[in-house]
Amino acid sequence: METQTKQGRPGYSREDVTRIAVQEFNARGYEATSMGELAKVLGLSKSAIYHHISSKEELLKEATDRALKLLDDLVAECDRTQGPAVARLRFLVRGTTLALCREPEYVTLLLRLRGNSEVETAAMARRRAFTGYVVGLVEAAQKEGAIDADVVPGVAGRLLLGMVNSLVEWYSPAGSLEPEDVADIVETMVFLGLEL
Amino acid sequence: METQTKQGRPGYSREDVTRIAVQEFNARGYEATSMGELAKVLGLSKSAIYHHISSKEELLKEATDRALKLLDDLVAECDRTQGPAVARLRFLVRGTTLALCREPEYVTLLLRLRGNSEVETAAMARRRAFTGYVVGLVEAAQKEGAIDADVVPGVAGRLLLGMVNSLVEWYSPAGSLEPEDVADIVETMVFLGLEL
Repeated sequence: METQTKQGRPGYSREDVTRIAVQEFNARGYEATSMGELAKVLGLSKSAIYHHISSKEELLKEATDRALKLLDDLVAECDRTQGPAVARLRFLVRGTTLALCREPEYVTLLLRLRGNSEVETAAMARRRAFTGYVVGLVEAAQKEGAIDADVVPGVAGRLLLGMVNSLVEWYSPAGSLEPEDVADIVETMVFLGLEL
Repeated sequence: METQTKQGRPGYSREDVTRIAVQEFNARGYEATSMGELAKVLGLSKSAIYHHISSKEELLKEATDRALKLLDDLVAECDRTQGPAVARLRFLVRGTTLALCREPEYVTLLLRLRGNSEVETAAMARRRAFTGYVVGLVEAAQKEGAIDADVVPGVAGRLLLGMVNSLVEWYSPAGSLEPEDVADIVETMVFLGLEL
């Protein structure tokens, strides 16, 4: 953390501040974390923290944008890909799992949003759009005959994202499981099922 | 709600009070909900609410006990069942889904616990024991050769519970999907996978 940037004050880069804030938001809740408490965790005075950031909401925006960009990039990549919908769905399920395993703190923050501020409702709307995209792929794969016709796409899409998102409850990048290992298991479960 | 019981005051049964409290806890967060606010929602004075309940923590205990009892009953039923582990795992996955769809408010409260009070840590320990039981069944089913040997049981068990638990984010008993329909889709996804 001993870096110096144009935007930050000595000792913290902009990214350091955001990352530490995200950890605090996840631990205490966004609403419950004050700028004063953030300053304390960063070892800054309450006025010095405003050299780094103008508001708590700005931090939230930066953090959720980062998580949402991971999803947007996956969708863009998916849209460029030719081939059957089920292959694109596989790519998306894998990609979402990898993104979450690599950036669990940012994704956790995104998933825990419940509030009514503009930043929160905008982020939640983008999350819903991503869910809609996944549901659309399940539907397309079903129309192509690749997926069980009895499955309701809206349910299956939400369930598979719910499975992936539940990783934030326990996955740690510091543990022995690599993101690729987790993605393999998720892919197996979602597409082939557990049973042989 | 126009009932009268030995425990409650006229107008609210004990169960009414608990159910309404659980809705408030889920909407605002347990920590953030005061007894005064609960009284307000119930249309009671701040002193009258103490005729119904002695503390917020008592309400939390009652509500989480109720959710945990659903899981305990499933485990007990499962233990009585003979047959291969994979059949018991199927029963448990289905049963957990049905329990959640029928009592989403109580299960949501249980799943959102993060706190450090005795009631919360005790409930979280029981939740972890349930997860351990499910992971044990995945392991047993794998040893019996019914489940892919490449799947890590601790990951698969957590992922399948994560999938089921994610229903609290969107499932509503008031909607058009019956709990049995949801259980069918969950069972298909977990055991057979989406792909044909």
